[in-house]
Amino acid sequence: MTNRRVLLRNRPVGEPKPSDFEIVDAPLPEPQEGDILVRTIWLSLDPYMRGRMNDVKSYTAPVELGQPMVGGTVGEVVKSRDAAFTPGDFVLSYGGWQAYHVAKAAGARVGPFGPLKLDPQAAPISTALGILGMPGLTAYVGLYDIAQPKPGETVVVSAAAGAVGSVVGQLAKIRGCRVAGIASTKDKCEYVLKELGFDACVSHRVPDLAAVLRDACPKGIDVYFDNVGGDVLKAVLRNVNPFARIPLCGIISQYNATEMPPGPNLAPVLVNRVTIRGFLVSDHADRLPQFLADCSRWLREGKLKYREDIVQGLEKAPEALIGLLRGQNTGKMLVKVGEDPTRR
Amino acid sequence: MTNRRVLLRNRPVGEPKPSDFEIVDAPLPEPQEGDILVRTIWLSLDPYMRGRMNDVKSYTAPVELGQPMVGGTVGEVVKSRDAAFTPGDFVLSYGGWQAYHVAKAAGARVGPFGPLKLDPQAAPISTALGILGMPGLTAYVGLYDIAQPKPGETVVVSAAAGAVGSVVGQLAKIRGCRVAGIASTKDKCEYVLKELGFDACVSHRVPDLAAVLRDACPKGIDVYFDNVGGDVLKAVLRNVNPFARIPLCGIISQYNATEMPPGPNLAPVLVNRVTIRGFLVSDHADRLPQFLADCSRWLREGKLKYREDIVQGLEKAPEALIGLLRGQNTGKMLVKVGEDPTRR
Repeated sequence: MTNRRVLLRNRPVGEPKPSDFEIVDAPLPEPQEGDILVRTIWLSLDPYMRGRMNDVKSYTAPVELGQPMVGGTVGEVVKSRDAAFTPGDFVLSYGGWQAYHVAKAAGARVGPFGPLKLDPQAAPISTALGILGMPGLTAYVGLYDIAQPKPGETVVVSAAAGAVGSVVGQLAKIRGCRVAGIASTKDKCEYVLKELGFDACVSHRVPDLAAVLRDACPKGIDVYFDNVGGDVLKAVLRNVNPFARIPLCGIISQYNATEMPPGPNLAPVLVNRVTIRGFLVSDHADRLPQFLADCSRWLREGKLKYREDIVQGLEKAPEALIGLLRGQNTGKMLVKVGEDPTRR
Repeated sequence: MTNRRVLLRNRPVGEPKPSDFEIVDAPLPEPQEGDILVRTIWLSLDPYMRGRMNDVKSYTAPVELGQPMVGGTVGEVVKSRDAAFTPGDFVLSYGGWQAYHVAKAAGARVGPFGPLKLDPQAAPISTALGILGMPGLTAYVGLYDIAQPKPGETVVVSAAAGAVGSVVGQLAKIRGCRVAGIASTKDKCEYVLKELGFDACVSHRVPDLAAVLRDACPKGIDVYFDNVGGDVLKAVLRNVNPFARIPLCGIISQYNATEMPPGPNLAPVLVNRVTIRGFLVSDHADRLPQFLADCSRWLREGKLKYREDIVQGLEKAPEALIGLLRGQNTGKMLVKVGEDPTRR
């Protein structure tokens, strides 16, 4: 039995190309004492992965050339050398782009990436990578802890049909806010409006986004949850209310840029006493229990909905990531790496 | 007796010109019940005044064409129709660019612009426009309340020799921080280092400010008190530490701009979880008592120093404001409008 892996072959310049990745078959790894061997079922694809492909200092180390791409995974324990896990257990871990991986079970700190044993009765195991996982916690922390919207305030979120944005808007509705999404296509706006229950959704592909946002947010913008940066942020800043809060979660618009583009003029930030705050979900693992309690309940109650955008087979991961960075997905982008015995 | 006034004649395009102002002699105004008539001694010039010359919505209304320019003043009561004031009292008020003005004494809310009776024994009355006035409170609130530096952290402030920046750096030293200033000329840097006791001061007129700042701040930047925006902010963002705080106090670099220039790329804000927060001193009048208590004491103890950059005569105010916006002043820019009986 071999372990199929997707390695980083070249550091992309601009948009990644399929040839920047290499698919290889390696021997199966062997778990040591305190380890588990996991068969990957689901691989999460997320925009932050583009940053790991660059050889620049960031908040975590880049992926080394010739090594597997990193990523959150849900899988099944096939061999355990730790008392806490049994073969057949489902587990969230950070296994990367490969069919099998060894995870340290013993003494590992549980963060948004696990390792965490999953109960397939409680929720579909794939949700541990989406609405009940890192993207959901990102939305929860960024909105509730960083932006702290009050009932009746207007919340805007970009990449509104994405894994994080779709949760942000629903959490804002639960809080009693008016919510406007920003997405690319008409189909995504439809999804956001009809399925997720946002109050408005506009495409950023319009000549004057600032004017369109003004119509969509007649009382101005109190919170902007920013996933994209760029021109969308500029348009939002023309519509912010005094004391608006802008959690900066991602800058997808420039992840493929070869030179850092300029940012928004900050005069509206000064005049309106706006707070822009960058945050990383990894700093907020302490909020995981409360997040899981709240969002699992809301999911059961039907107050939270989600969609998964699934590609079949690890070999498809490179082009799926390229598509994700182009904004082609709706909902949580997942690669189905192996059979999911919980889904019949 | 007439009242000399400086009116706004034209809305400037770009840098103001002397011909944008008009000097006229008007009749002396008459105080009504609850008013005081004040003879202006000191007029404060501040960068925010440039914004009031534009016909754009901001946090306060613009100066109307044909009306006197606004501004904080220290003067002497010459006629009082309010029980709380007596002729001969010295008072901080918002009299604008004129030799005399009427201020509402009764029921007026005391804010950073008064009206407030001054004790000439406690401190020179002109300090009510500078280190013990609006610029001092701006520094106090922006540094202590917004940025909240901890002892040992590195604080950087731009326009370091100006009315606000010079106080920010000294307050940071009092807090036990390492302080680096950014100013334009060698003379200003000398002043900031030798007289005000900053640990470092660099000119922004260098080919690679980011590299110069890296040398001046070997442990990175934890707090940047931003008075100028523009390229200085960009250079700072290349040197910020995780969880850095950037109170946005002013954007002098663009006050004369005819088009809004782009701002800084925000990737370092995301990666380092930086907080950028715009603030206006007028929102923080509640901090005035504590500020006055602290800063009066530090002034008496010699822990706070200040310099005044004085031009003689109201007629000089237009060119002095033009110079201020070019960064030609060192310390608090004041116009001496009339005789100061407390300075012999």
